[in-house]
Amino acid sequence: MSDQSGEILKRAKAGDLQGFARLLTLLEREGPTSFNRFPELLEAQKPAFRIGITGPPGAGKSTLIGRLIGRFRERGMKVGVMAVDPSSPFSKGAVLGDRIRYTAHFGDPGVFIRSLGSRGSLGGLSASAYLMVRAFDIAQFDVVLMETVGVGQTELEIMNVADWVSVVLVPESGDSIQGMKAGLLEIADIFVVNKGDRPGADAFAHELESSLLLDPRGPSKPIRVLKTTALTGEGLDAFLDGVDQVMKGEEWKQRRVAPARIRAEAKALLRNQLERQIDVKAQTVSSPRDFLSLFSK
Amino acid sequence: MSDQSGEILKRAKAGDLQGFARLLTLLEREGPTSFNRFPELLEAQKPAFRIGITGPPGAGKSTLIGRLIGRFRERGMKVGVMAVDPSSPFSKGAVLGDRIRYTAHFGDPGVFIRSLGSRGSLGGLSASAYLMVRAFDIAQFDVVLMETVGVGQTELEIMNVADWVSVVLVPESGDSIQGMKAGLLEIADIFVVNKGDRPGADAFAHELESSLLLDPRGPSKPIRVLKTTALTGEGLDAFLDGVDQVMKGEEWKQRRVAPARIRAEAKALLRNQLERQIDVKAQTVSSPRDFLSLFSK
Repeated sequence: MSDQSGEILKRAKAGDLQGFARLLTLLEREGPTSFNRFPELLEAQKPAFRIGITGPPGAGKSTLIGRLIGRFRERGMKVGVMAVDPSSPFSKGAVLGDRIRYTAHFGDPGVFIRSLGSRGSLGGLSASAYLMVRAFDIAQFDVVLMETVGVGQTELEIMNVADWVSVVLVPESGDSIQGMKAGLLEIADIFVVNKGDRPGADAFAHELESSLLLDPRGPSKPIRVLKTTALTGEGLDAFLDGVDQVMKGEEWKQRRVAPARIRAEAKALLRNQLERQIDVKAQTVSSPRDFLSLFSK
Repeated sequence: MSDQSGEILKRAKAGDLQGFARLLTLLEREGPTSFNRFPELLEAQKPAFRIGITGPPGAGKSTLIGRLIGRFRERGMKVGVMAVDPSSPFSKGAVLGDRIRYTAHFGDPGVFIRSLGSRGSLGGLSASAYLMVRAFDIAQFDVVLMETVGVGQTELEIMNVADWVSVVLVPESGDSIQGMKAGLLEIADIFVVNKGDRPGADAFAHELESSLLLDPRGPSKPIRVLKTTALTGEGLDAFLDGVDQVMKGEEWKQRRVAPARIRAEAKALLRNQLERQIDVKAQTVSSPRDFLSLFSK
């Protein structure tokens, strides 16, 4: 394997998608100790810009992503897509939108798409996901679209990894987001009111803008509100302008190496590693008496 | 401390509530290694029957619990109440119903009430909660009412600890529980349709009964459906009949020592313990380069 891994890394670095896929397999198998084999993962020369896209099911995230892939490709940019399906104990299987909307880009050597479940035993992001996100940085990708659903633990974690976060809503979201508005303000860099041709879209967009102004914590960062109709492509120009503006700056690169962020990543990776140990240890237990040796001082 | 701890244990075992409170403080401070100091926690002579009570905010769980405390006290039973407030990153503070409804029982030497936050970093139940639940078993309690909200990770964990689980709903819950119905079936031993004097209560109770019959997995266990009005006490007799019936049997005692359940508890305790190590280790990290030593082979 070690002989091959040099060759795989070389191919991935050159932008070869098959090589990239094999690199991901290696990383998945080896876990966080891969950093020692591939220290390149730690300091990207040309980091890919990570756009987080989250929101409730049915908001049109997949359609939006399909459109964005097209637009980035028109500019000759290489695009990665990483869709994280939160695996809840109750809802088995994919929650995220139809993958079919991405199929237009299958076979395109400038597009790499991967779905992955969140596998941390408590619902957080898997070690593989963290490694994968870093792998995009060394394989000539210009932009990575990271799709998640809602605002659970997984979304919080992935948004800590993203460089720019868009929360996609629909005009009808107004009622249901009341409770989580504070959380959304926390993670959003932009609110996208999708299906903007529906009744109530303008009113909802204004409502969002007002609640941003009324945020008692004050505007800790500028959050835009944007109306789109992903199906027709309307509003996408403004979205891409936003991306361009942030990408041009240096702030997102500084944010990425902020110690707090690196520590959060370290914790998640350590947790994933220890989870295996926990499983093994727990298997030795069959009665409460076994707790005595398990928790001896 | 070790001199004192013998005395504290003695008082707690004798049923003294102050002694019990001090025992909990010791357990909280020491964590799972307390099992070595207090091996009594591992094999209860006279286990307290643990009734889990969960459901959405506003379903009347606190009122129901207030009523149940009264009814158990009439029978001369000693009652513990453990209310677990899920601490979400978004909703700071208490989600659970007004504690004021329990105040009628303050000062009653046969009632012990404790609220605790879920403190596992990923939202699970804290080690203290697990230790506390076991402590009730050795301090002369007859019954423990465990209140939680909803069906998140914390609720799943606490329901793995309960001997009998009631899911409290209201006639209006029909629409909002569709998505989590499977999860509720998984954890419920009884559905309580509270505020049963409201319109739609009978229809909703029948709907629940039908969906139990239609459960594609078949009836893996009998789940009752009950209509109550906690405010007036209506329906409580039937609830208590249910409790009596289960308590008389031996099944709940066997369920409690089932290896799968003990292993789940071991995992949660190990996870809590390792979380502290993770925090310490993560503090040593300030740049991605530090991952190399953190994840060396």
